[in-house]
Amino acid sequence: MLKKGFGIKNIAEMLGISVSTVSRALRDAHDINPETKEKVLKLAKELNFKPNKNAAALASGSTKNIGVLIPFITNYYFGTVISGIQEEAYRLGYNIILFVTNDEVDREKQLIDNLDTASLDGLLISLSSNSTDITHFENLIQAGLPLVFFDRVPNEINASKVMQSDYEGAFLATSHLIKKGYKRIAHLAGPESLKFTQERLRGYLNALKQAQLPVQKEYIIHSGFSTQHGFADTQQLIALHDRPDAIFAANDRKAIGAIQALKSANINVGVDFGVIGFTNDPICTVIEPNLTTVEEPAFEIGLQSCQLLIKHIKNKEFEPRSVVIPCRLINRDSA
Amino acid sequence: MLKKGFGIKNIAEMLGISVSTVSRALRDAHDINPETKEKVLKLAKELNFKPNKNAAALASGSTKNIGVLIPFITNYYFGTVISGIQEEAYRLGYNIILFVTNDEVDREKQLIDNLDTASLDGLLISLSSNSTDITHFENLIQAGLPLVFFDRVPNEINASKVMQSDYEGAFLATSHLIKKGYKRIAHLAGPESLKFTQERLRGYLNALKQAQLPVQKEYIIHSGFSTQHGFADTQQLIALHDRPDAIFAANDRKAIGAIQALKSANINVGVDFGVIGFTNDPICTVIEPNLTTVEEPAFEIGLQSCQLLIKHIKNKEFEPRSVVIPCRLINRDSA
Repeated sequence: MLKKGFGIKNIAEMLGISVSTVSRALRDAHDINPETKEKVLKLAKELNFKPNKNAAALASGSTKNIGVLIPFITNYYFGTVISGIQEEAYRLGYNIILFVTNDEVDREKQLIDNLDTASLDGLLISLSSNSTDITHFENLIQAGLPLVFFDRVPNEINASKVMQSDYEGAFLATSHLIKKGYKRIAHLAGPESLKFTQERLRGYLNALKQAQLPVQKEYIIHSGFSTQHGFADTQQLIALHDRPDAIFAANDRKAIGAIQALKSANINVGVDFGVIGFTNDPICTVIEPNLTTVEEPAFEIGLQSCQLLIKHIKNKEFEPRSVVIPCRLINRDSA
Repeated sequence: MLKKGFGIKNIAEMLGISVSTVSRALRDAHDINPETKEKVLKLAKELNFKPNKNAAALASGSTKNIGVLIPFITNYYFGTVISGIQEEAYRLGYNIILFVTNDEVDREKQLIDNLDTASLDGLLISLSSNSTDITHFENLIQAGLPLVFFDRVPNEINASKVMQSDYEGAFLATSHLIKKGYKRIAHLAGPESLKFTQERLRGYLNALKQAQLPVQKEYIIHSGFSTQHGFADTQQLIALHDRPDAIFAANDRKAIGAIQALKSANINVGVDFGVIGFTNDPICTVIEPNLTTVEEPAFEIGLQSCQLLIKHIKNKEFEPRSVVIPCRLINRDSA
């Protein structure tokens, strides 16, 4: 491996020719003497010299870098999405630059405002929970940076979006509880501003409607995505005078919290009380009873987001698309 | 935000001066007319123009990019390490470029061999399980790229290393089982080639020795880090004529697999049989009984690795250091 910092300047010196001649030879330009070009390419090959990516980026405008902006990294869903992104990026020789917002809007804005668009070919984005003003992303689109949103996507933006079928997944989950004989089904929902929260809520409401079950306002609780949120919300539900007999949670961690709260109240989960989650985190097979859930196609979300982004990078006239990937029910013991 | 691709060329055109003059003004060079410089800086400020990072990188040799090479991303430990790295990188304005090896030596080598060292200031590395030949990393050191290894580090390499105190953690875990009255303690170890596997094994052996307990060869099983590995290895242990009465597992997922195997054999975990893990994955409080474990300082590992790397980046004469961060026992119900 050549010393870091070894560049076309060193090759030019070794051959006694100009830097721009070396650069043109490596770029395969036409305005260069074929013998000189051959000499340069031969030496570059002997030295196993790869042209500096920064120089190549300046010359071609392409960096082979894709940015990925996500709320969390210590999270099974986002980890799996990144695996999918990474698989496609690796195959096509792109690097991934990672930006983690810690689910904070301020950090999200700061990261975007300080983004050096010249060092990226495009950006994959999953919003932070409270991101309602999306001006900072619209600025990126204005600046000509290809964007693809996934999972947590804004309602109104002229960019591609890749999501799981949140509505159908939620409909599937709620209908499963109804089929199992549960009649007073509560929903532990996510933060209201997120589109997928709205979609999952809609799937839940429509499944109830279709089964002619009444909607009880106090059975729908919006909060964050942690086990602790699920635990606290469930304690609130079982303290109700007319307590529910089942819970559809917007993600598995909330469902785990629900099971823990129910067990500590000596309620027999899977028999007297049904619980169903959303994600299919490996934790589902560790909790007892094992958690019935809706599997999110996280790897596929990452893969297809990255494919769309690279298509957009290669064709600046690309028309934004919305892709919805189906979910499926994983039947276990909690419902 | 300026259009992607807007550069010093455009500024030069707007002011009717040469590109190199604009470049020198923005670099704060001395060989430039102060009035011209002021004109350039004023316009750049008005336009909110940030010089292209690739151009800056070519001029200064600094990219403000740090590479992170890890085996897995869908893993609580590595996710938490990245959070720590990212915290420090964000504070100091560095970007993280992520490389995931899928724990495959071939991919690890290919990623390193294709690495464009000019686009990175330094690299943080955790080895893949079977990485025994480290020539590809030695080449990077030769090429002048600052490296820091963390968690899965090679035995012999002239680079900084950041680890948890694997030996003490394992000693602590095994001693805890001994104190609780267990006498036939098995060890579910990791792959033999990893230094931390050797350290945890050493801690286990020395705790037995200190308590004058015999070492039984068939009580030590090396395998991978998954729940499935822990499950299968434990089935093997409980099939022994002289079965053990406790297990110290090299990580929490193996310990979870052990608990599941023990429960499916109707063995009363936490009473008749002790299990202790290593990591402190959130899954520890989901399994029943809750898993007693040794907490790894994952966030701190990431933070300190990144601090060391940036020190090395800023001072090329930096002498490699080894940092060991203490672990602590988290007492729960499984032992």
